[in-house]
Amino acid sequence: MTESATSIPSDLAISRAAVPRPLTEVAAEMGIGPHLLEPYGNAAAKVSLDAIDELRDRPRAKYVVVSAITPTPLGTGKTTTSVGLGQGFKHIGKLGVVALRQPSMGPTFGIKGGAAGGGYSQVIPMESLNLHLTGDMHAVTAAHNLLSAMLANHIHKGNALRIDPHAVSWRRVLDINDRELRQIVTGLGGRTNGTPAETGFDITAASEVMALLALSTSLRDLRERLGRIVVGYNVDGEPVTAEMLKVAGAMCVLLRDAIKPNLMQTVEQTPVMIHCGPFGNIATGNSSVVADLIAIHGGDYLVTEAGFGADIGAEKFFNIKCRASGLTPDAAVVVAGVRDLKTHSGKYRVTAGKPLPEAMLVENPDDVYAGASNLRRQLANIRRHGVNPVVAVNAFPTDYESEQQAILDIAAEEGAYAAVSNHFTRGGKGAIDLAQAVAEACDQPSTYQRLYPDDMPLADKIETIAREMYGADGIDVSPLAARQLESYEHNGFGDLPVCIAKTHLSLTDDPTRKGAPTGWRLPVREVRASVGAGFIYPICGTMQTMPGLSSSPAAERIDIDDEGNIVGLS
Amino acid sequence: MTESATSIPSDLAISRAAVPRPLTEVAAEMGIGPHLLEPYGNAAAKVSLDAIDELRDRPRAKYVVVSAITPTPLGTGKTTTSVGLGQGFKHIGKLGVVALRQPSMGPTFGIKGGAAGGGYSQVIPMESLNLHLTGDMHAVTAAHNLLSAMLANHIHKGNALRIDPHAVSWRRVLDINDRELRQIVTGLGGRTNGTPAETGFDITAASEVMALLALSTSLRDLRERLGRIVVGYNVDGEPVTAEMLKVAGAMCVLLRDAIKPNLMQTVEQTPVMIHCGPFGNIATGNSSVVADLIAIHGGDYLVTEAGFGADIGAEKFFNIKCRASGLTPDAAVVVAGVRDLKTHSGKYRVTAGKPLPEAMLVENPDDVYAGASNLRRQLANIRRHGVNPVVAVNAFPTDYESEQQAILDIAAEEGAYAAVSNHFTRGGKGAIDLAQAVAEACDQPSTYQRLYPDDMPLADKIETIAREMYGADGIDVSPLAARQLESYEHNGFGDLPVCIAKTHLSLTDDPTRKGAPTGWRLPVREVRASVGAGFIYPICGTMQTMPGLSSSPAAERIDIDDEGNIVGLS
Repeated sequence: MTESATSIPSDLAISRAAVPRPLTEVAAEMGIGPHLLEPYGNAAAKVSLDAIDELRDRPRAKYVVVSAITPTPLGTGKTTTSVGLGQGFKHIGKLGVVALRQPSMGPTFGIKGGAAGGGYSQVIPMESLNLHLTGDMHAVTAAHNLLSAMLANHIHKGNALRIDPHAVSWRRVLDINDRELRQIVTGLGGRTNGTPAETGFDITAASEVMALLALSTSLRDLRERLGRIVVGYNVDGEPVTAEMLKVAGAMCVLLRDAIKPNLMQTVEQTPVMIHCGPFGNIATGNSSVVADLIAIHGGDYLVTEAGFGADIGAEKFFNIKCRASGLTPDAAVVVAGVRDLKTHSGKYRVTAGKPLPEAMLVENPDDVYAGASNLRRQLANIRRHGVNPVVAVNAFPTDYESEQQAILDIAAEEGAYAAVSNHFTRGGKGAIDLAQAVAEACDQPSTYQRLYPDDMPLADKIETIAREMYGADGIDVSPLAARQLESYEHNGFGDLPVCIAKTHLSLTDDPTRKGAPTGWRLPVREVRASVGAGFIYPICGTMQTMPGLSSSPAAERIDIDDEGNIVGLS
Repeated sequence: MTESATSIPSDLAISRAAVPRPLTEVAAEMGIGPHLLEPYGNAAAKVSLDAIDELRDRPRAKYVVVSAITPTPLGTGKTTTSVGLGQGFKHIGKLGVVALRQPSMGPTFGIKGGAAGGGYSQVIPMESLNLHLTGDMHAVTAAHNLLSAMLANHIHKGNALRIDPHAVSWRRVLDINDRELRQIVTGLGGRTNGTPAETGFDITAASEVMALLALSTSLRDLRERLGRIVVGYNVDGEPVTAEMLKVAGAMCVLLRDAIKPNLMQTVEQTPVMIHCGPFGNIATGNSSVVADLIAIHGGDYLVTEAGFGADIGAEKFFNIKCRASGLTPDAAVVVAGVRDLKTHSGKYRVTAGKPLPEAMLVENPDDVYAGASNLRRQLANIRRHGVNPVVAVNAFPTDYESEQQAILDIAAEEGAYAAVSNHFTRGGKGAIDLAQAVAEACDQPSTYQRLYPDDMPLADKIETIAREMYGADGIDVSPLAARQLESYEHNGFGDLPVCIAKTHLSLTDDPTRKGAPTGWRLPVREVRASVGAGFIYPICGTMQTMPGLSSSPAAERIDIDDEGNIVGLS
């Protein structure tokens, strides 16, 4: 093995030992003056959207999206690699700025116990990042649920818009893991308690308000997107919007601080913009447009993370996020690890939270090669968008050099830049090779292009993604989905991009199929619309939008000690 | 009439025109150094609880609670008077500090459109005060609902504590007006969605977590109170606590910032501590203990507001809040206005949101006298606790001098200090007389005492309050309530104070009965326990713990304008 895991302190210990710089200094390095900063405690500061204009004349950073091969239940370490790469630039004399999603609080108390990178590539302080931060998630919750209440109230108070109660799709949200809220009946107990309805709660990250906040380019754009949210249909089948319910303004007021991105820093004082955390399946899984619009003039390199594998997170980055922001990427990192490729060989059964199969820990570069197909497909997915890919071999203590070399060999066969990166154990110093590889890739011309034009029919957009990104032979659209697609086009939503909701654990719709399967078709069961966010989302599989808690939730181990310090986050 | 209402700009215009001082300076005036401050945006700063110890050696402020006669649907202007009085001290060469509850956001979008005082006696910026502020309400929501999820998960995952599903009293909360959530069924849709249960949501202000946060004296005390929360009973009838569910630690972690009070300022730069907003019926209706423990050494006078009339808010201040804090008051202001006393005459029917009856606007000091009984009773209620009362005649533009004089005459008959206060139209300058009256009252000896000893049986405590505060002839305890009282005493909760939940619109349990009715008995329908907060609360009437929205909610008028400013808050 390359390095000993036991030599590394716990994430929380590393986070606590790190020396933060005053955020005014972190901001100053990006060209953000103190008049554009609003401190929120000592952990984070909000950045005014005026920074977009004020920084416009500064040089434009190279724009690097970090994605991955299809993740395994182990996770590929995408956030850690993004942080490590950002830190790595400092060691080659450049300023990297990192843009990340805000972690959802529900899972923090469920299975994860925290999410802020790891080892010596972390955002600090991890306690603030994982708990409330500046309240953006709560603001999304409040705005979403105000619309729910105003909608129910409208129906209760006479229903002037003639909303069909059976055609209401807007639910409620909370940032929590609570399975009991998935399916509920509200409005019981008589007339004064409103009108009974079958509905439910999703986790806040799954809210359309979160999705559209992440895609908004300004407060005005946010206001307009909120107004376009479709909550359901009237008895004539016409869409009913938040604007028609006269609530979009109040929702925008609730979000007027949440739209400002949050500035934090890494353990090496590298600037990090934390903003928004939309789901990666029913939404884009990308951090906010406004954070990138500011940070694109804040350093030499802007490293932005896209959720899940390149077929999902990067595809949505290219075709939905960049479409909204107008920014074009210069390079795309694909994170891949020895364990991930071994899993994609199909030989091992890996389960989250359980020890790895012993056979998987034996030195075996052939197993890595056997899993190469997924990496090759993801590199092709990046290239299909005209962008240069860089393979980041995220080093683990259990790796052997021969195995890491196998990944570098695959990358070389594909003509892609590649580097092994030891940022987890060594911080930015361990990511120097990766930073250099990314810098070289960025120096090559990028011919970024989107995958499909706006005016392509919705079904064809879905089929294009299925064939060209996932490697499917085609799509099977259910009769329900076909009717829905027709209705969306009829209602004027046909120009929107599509945001496919499918499992992130496979290129196919079956989470157990590893590698890069061929000879299969993507079933489209149902199609929904996030008109405010600005995309149509076909449902290809079962999407869980409200997680549950396990038999032993992390909440049981999280507490304060006698000095008032938080324990149990990891 | 004494003054023209039209000469005063709108609350929002006054708030916007005010010039705030940097909060570090506001804090410095209180003796709070910058190391104890955490800025949250530019509107508010959190104050570290270390300030309690650091300020301990500074002189102790005179402690003044602001309560009122029994309010009418018009509201008596208690918050405005508290702010005005705090400002008034500056004009007599003293430093007043004001402690207020944080307004609940639900009603802001419902009927109220904001709550920050009014006219020239306001907390600024009103937008921040009314919207999220530093996120404390959301933190309470998150902590409360984490307990709900952990409780449901415990039952779903085998129910090792043998919790009786029919004896679960813990619900969920959201800071919103949403009548459809009052009564719901959760856990539908099959085994993976948990166990079906009949339950509901209350507004966050009604959460026991809010009540206990307001009464906690330290982070450690908070942790212990959270552990004592009783969520229901097991099949043997024994209480099940948050500690037994192993979630009190995680709840405390979620509240570690929320327990720090928020420093803001008034339009005249007077320091204001904003912290917690518990309901006034099923909880204490008082702002936090920790805010008062800090501010008691932060000026010459600490003005703290207690919700509703003196029979409710001040009684709970004396017997629950002061019991927790160990602080003892020096004087108690009773806010009374011409319109309020006229309403207590019983001659007029006043409805919130509708114009006043024309006859009520005619000069008529006799009508004021006819409503004196309520004021006399509330002054007696203050005196019963050994504290000197001061009547604050909150001047309205529609008042006549003869009518204001009538209130001063009643106060004189009762031997109470009194002053007319024009703080709404004139700010602190208008409250000089009131500040002087309060200062004089504080210079008299106070012989503060609680109404009943801890070891008095619970039913006797209820009867003592009913007789001595409300003027009832006795109480009628239902068989259910009697069983509950017996069970609470059996479970060791008998030493707790009682916090009576009844209408705030009458001294009786009938909101339509004005003045100070005699010859009636208080019915006790049911009794509940907030063991974490540390009180038993008898239910005397119907308490609405989740408001609804009207046909024309304030949310419809709240929006951002083209410059990004908020409009529609008032």
